[in-house]
Amino acid sequence: MSENVNTNKRGIIWTNYKFPPAAEILFNDAVAHYKLITSAKMQASNLVAGASDPSISEADIAFGQPDPAAIIASTKLKWVHLTSAGYDRYDRDDIRKALSARGGKLTTSSHVYDEPCAEHTLAFMLSLARQLPQCLDTQRMDRAWISAERRMDSYLLNGQTVVILSYGAIACRLIELLSPFDMKIYAVRRKIAGNEAVETVTTDKMDDVLPLADHVINILPGGADTRNIIGEAKISSMKRGAVYYSIGRGSTTDQDALLAALDSGQLRYAYLDVTDPEPLPTDHLLWSHPNCFITPHTAGGSVDEFERLALHFQNNLRKYEAGEEMENQVI
Amino acid sequence: MSENVNTNKRGIIWTNYKFPPAAEILFNDAVAHYKLITSAKMQASNLVAGASDPSISEADIAFGQPDPAAIIASTKLKWVHLTSAGYDRYDRDDIRKALSARGGKLTTSSHVYDEPCAEHTLAFMLSLARQLPQCLDTQRMDRAWISAERRMDSYLLNGQTVVILSYGAIACRLIELLSPFDMKIYAVRRKIAGNEAVETVTTDKMDDVLPLADHVINILPGGADTRNIIGEAKISSMKRGAVYYSIGRGSTTDQDALLAALDSGQLRYAYLDVTDPEPLPTDHLLWSHPNCFITPHTAGGSVDEFERLALHFQNNLRKYEAGEEMENQVI
Repeated sequence: MSENVNTNKRGIIWTNYKFPPAAEILFNDAVAHYKLITSAKMQASNLVAGASDPSISEADIAFGQPDPAAIIASTKLKWVHLTSAGYDRYDRDDIRKALSARGGKLTTSSHVYDEPCAEHTLAFMLSLARQLPQCLDTQRMDRAWISAERRMDSYLLNGQTVVILSYGAIACRLIELLSPFDMKIYAVRRKIAGNEAVETVTTDKMDDVLPLADHVINILPGGADTRNIIGEAKISSMKRGAVYYSIGRGSTTDQDALLAALDSGQLRYAYLDVTDPEPLPTDHLLWSHPNCFITPHTAGGSVDEFERLALHFQNNLRKYEAGEEMENQVI
Repeated sequence: MSENVNTNKRGIIWTNYKFPPAAEILFNDAVAHYKLITSAKMQASNLVAGASDPSISEADIAFGQPDPAAIIASTKLKWVHLTSAGYDRYDRDDIRKALSARGGKLTTSSHVYDEPCAEHTLAFMLSLARQLPQCLDTQRMDRAWISAERRMDSYLLNGQTVVILSYGAIACRLIELLSPFDMKIYAVRRKIAGNEAVETVTTDKMDDVLPLADHVINILPGGADTRNIIGEAKISSMKRGAVYYSIGRGSTTDQDALLAALDSGQLRYAYLDVTDPEPLPTDHLLWSHPNCFITPHTAGGSVDEFERLALHFQNNLRKYEAGEEMENQVI
């Protein structure tokens, strides 16, 4: 018996996410068996909550960045799929309680972002190790062929030590990318699961591993618990001359402490993909510090980002329908 | 019976290589059991042959960049250990014949340079994929937070195709570093040995694989055979929009053809560590092309380069004494 998919819809999907044309075709194809409600107020970005929209109350599934209050208010919503890797805004007891009460789930797009973010982080690490920013500055200025000096300023990742703050999808992929380098890698996470691929300590033991690191990689989520967590105390626990990378949320770094550490040489370099605020004001001293390099929150991006977002949702939708475990489920 | 190593030297080692102090201690320690002849004319760099020096005629072992004529003229020299990875100047029938006639060997310092060169190449690849040079240019100029555009200009190495020209120590290490990326990798080399870690074709089949590559990595040695080998014909065989890297010898790239390909968009970017000549004149158009990035022959360098050179020689000296196979023996 074949189902007439045009008349017998499988449910109602609400979205406030605006895809570019090529990815929109993929998304529409994925949701063809559903009634699709497109919010009148589309989300502005993954970094801010979507506006309140009464049409979500009819939906079984929400895709995008729905208003947290609407998730709680809904009586029908069974599954929320966020278009971001982070879910700070949704990591609340009232949302957990509301979803759990009706057997609801919340998934993220973490898997879409782990590959670009891990590649971005390794790009940061290697680019500084090989003095690429310094060489580009020279190329843009006097084009001096200062080979001997640049060679002596270069260093090998091979044999060095890394501390990764957090052990989520990005950290796991980064650990894979670092595996051919003979590096000692530690991770720091809230709870030890026991299946970590590297030696892992809990957050309260962070000070035990920070002094060992040549590279400290901050992929911490935002929120009240992590605000300014990398401040003067943590930075002074680090090895003198360590390199600091921030690709999680700008709020987790105390930027004044970071500047002071770059000034004093406690940190050799910082490479930041996230700042507080974003955009970082053009007169902020981090922009002009000779040992601080900044990318404008691009770590998760790639030319096929939106196609990958649509395909990841499609993959989870098929799992949802089959009652299988979905990817990146956090509630 | 213990040998009095202070009076009974094991042989005579000649060197024209000037180590910095810390590495010199390591080197002197390595050769403590030998009579050491230090040339009056030290080599200027790994890139030019050392001056003629009559004192080499007494030596059993030469370390540095000896004059090729002196290797042929010597009746005693059993082993030449070069301080470079390349050995173009010594890759000659008359040298092979002269050394072979007395059971002599020639080794390079290839292993010292494979790690930094492979890390440098991956730094080039990731840095362009993640738009780090473009972001640094913006940081140095108006500091606009052009996140969406940069994200769409970024791409993932994962899933792309690489063609490596040559299959030496650097290529082998690079292949290891690329192994966690899901990339298709081809190598091109003069003769297939059969034990290559990736699909490998001979040089005459280069045109079969060039059209497949998103990334073409030139690690070819210098010399008459390879001069300008990457010119208009090879570049037009490449996929439109491929990225080109050169870390072997500048003479292997036809720089006019490269500029034309960058202008036309046939090549998206070039990242060069070697040019012809070096230093590249400051008014050369490759310096100012917006899609060409240059490091000043630094791929092989690292802060511990000289210590690694000394330790590599020490390791080979022990193998030489024990009659074991040495590392990086090429004759």
